[in-house]
Amino acid sequence: MVYDLIIVGGGPAGITAGIYASRKKLKTLLITKDFTGQVELSWNIENYPGFPQITGHNLMENFKKHLQEYEIEIKKFEEVKKIIKEGNQFKVITNENEYTSLSLIITTGAFPKKLDIKNEEKFIGHGISYCLTCDERAFEGKTVAVIGGGNAGAEAALELKTFCPKIYILEYLDQLTCDEILKEEVLNSSSIEVVTGAEILSFEGNEELEKIIFKNRKTNEEKEILVNGCFVEIGTKPNTEFLEGLVDLNERKEIIVDPKTMATSVKGIFAAGDVCNFNHKQIIMACGQGALAALSVYEYLKTNF
Amino acid sequence: MVYDLIIVGGGPAGITAGIYASRKKLKTLLITKDFTGQVELSWNIENYPGFPQITGHNLMENFKKHLQEYEIEIKKFEEVKKIIKEGNQFKVITNENEYTSLSLIITTGAFPKKLDIKNEEKFIGHGISYCLTCDERAFEGKTVAVIGGGNAGAEAALELKTFCPKIYILEYLDQLTCDEILKEEVLNSSSIEVVTGAEILSFEGNEELEKIIFKNRKTNEEKEILVNGCFVEIGTKPNTEFLEGLVDLNERKEIIVDPKTMATSVKGIFAAGDVCNFNHKQIIMACGQGALAALSVYEYLKTNF
Repeated sequence: MVYDLIIVGGGPAGITAGIYASRKKLKTLLITKDFTGQVELSWNIENYPGFPQITGHNLMENFKKHLQEYEIEIKKFEEVKKIIKEGNQFKVITNENEYTSLSLIITTGAFPKKLDIKNEEKFIGHGISYCLTCDERAFEGKTVAVIGGGNAGAEAALELKTFCPKIYILEYLDQLTCDEILKEEVLNSSSIEVVTGAEILSFEGNEELEKIIFKNRKTNEEKEILVNGCFVEIGTKPNTEFLEGLVDLNERKEIIVDPKTMATSVKGIFAAGDVCNFNHKQIIMACGQGALAALSVYEYLKTNF
Repeated sequence: MVYDLIIVGGGPAGITAGIYASRKKLKTLLITKDFTGQVELSWNIENYPGFPQITGHNLMENFKKHLQEYEIEIKKFEEVKKIIKEGNQFKVITNENEYTSLSLIITTGAFPKKLDIKNEEKFIGHGISYCLTCDERAFEGKTVAVIGGGNAGAEAALELKTFCPKIYILEYLDQLTCDEILKEEVLNSSSIEVVTGAEILSFEGNEELEKIIFKNRKTNEEKEILVNGCFVEIGTKPNTEFLEGLVDLNERKEIIVDPKTMATSVKGIFAAGDVCNFNHKQIIMACGQGALAALSVYEYLKTNF
């Protein structure tokens, strides 16, 4: 059996592509490891138009319910390991099966890197966030820390100045690694306190995050700061390992797409959402890209088969 | 008073830009003639993720409620007549006032051309649609007509074949004006009946559309066909008249944007939604573009002021 389209990934981009492809009656299979995506990490989404306030979990539940209105085949808990181009078809190999399709949409997203330290998991959604734009407003008037002194961290701290009276930047290295212009702004800001050489050891608190424990790497002294919130800004990692050698990736390992069609470097393979080389990663943008990718697939199939 | 940003237009793209700009605390003014957009023309939207079924009116109500969560100045019932670039600022002249801003996002949309004939307004949302992708599924198993034999009309008819047993194409000229490849497909399809030289006179029915009355332009004979639905596909018209001579437009008078930032040819002016030169016009895509435009404005202001 040959599918018209296989969508790899079940976050906002994949689900929207699924809705659009189903409406065009494409014979579609959606393969997803877990049906979640980064959305689930956000406990209060305020920037998806139509829902002034909704948890990431509930928004995903709405998306899934929407997709289930359509005749689309879904394989949950399968992970795509490899994709092989064979003529004008693609063989998709998962941990369990092999599928064949005339086209693909890759929506495997990106995951923020975690610190992998004590109590990090516990306070996700209870003080720890990996998405500034999603969650910054929840900390209005509060004391927050930003982990990471690269561009993302510095920009986060500068943006948080508008909302928060006191912001710490905790950086592992001996100095901030962000652009000079940002460094200057950060160091000139009275509400931002920079701590360099800080190795984060653990997060502490009861229900909500209260403290960050870290080690001064020079003196080996253990210290703590009291915070209401913490943004971890140590980079993201797109889920593109299974695509290496197949489609063109940029230096950050994101898929390079034509933003007018969401086509990749390989004819018949499209991509959408956080896995792509866009500067901004937002749910509403991922959905728009998923719709566009599906409409482009529809045209590709009409023209080529 | 100088605004950071003026958003011109209050459809899905403008509202999303407003939400994102407000969240970044930009001093923003949104000017809209009517706060609706084409969305209001659709009586059953099934492809905005998160809402499996919603009327265009109710979706817009949700969007407006969402925007009202934020501190954003809104001028309703004002129409922008002219925009003048003065140094690195813009003067926005409406029918009532003048405003000054450091940046602009244009989201004035496009409107489908109407036939302007008897009972057309009456049956909008009751059989007459101007958006195939929005409404095609509502006519599954029914008899429909497509007004217009250009590419949009032919493509609409071919797409409707999947859902509808009988489709008429009514074309004013003596022959279809679509591409040859489409014409061939249309003429080879047993479920599509092409009527050329047809001047549409009126729509008839009780609550819902039942009949289309037209004149055979060769014989002057009056005829009627019985239909459940009708898609008017005689083109759209972007609302860009007030921008002529200011930003670059394409041959269809759509604003030419850089799809990675939504920047126009004029520094400081951005655009989003149906007013832009994208092939597909969808609510979810307009929202994604509105978010991107606002984030690009935020970066533009940070860098330039």
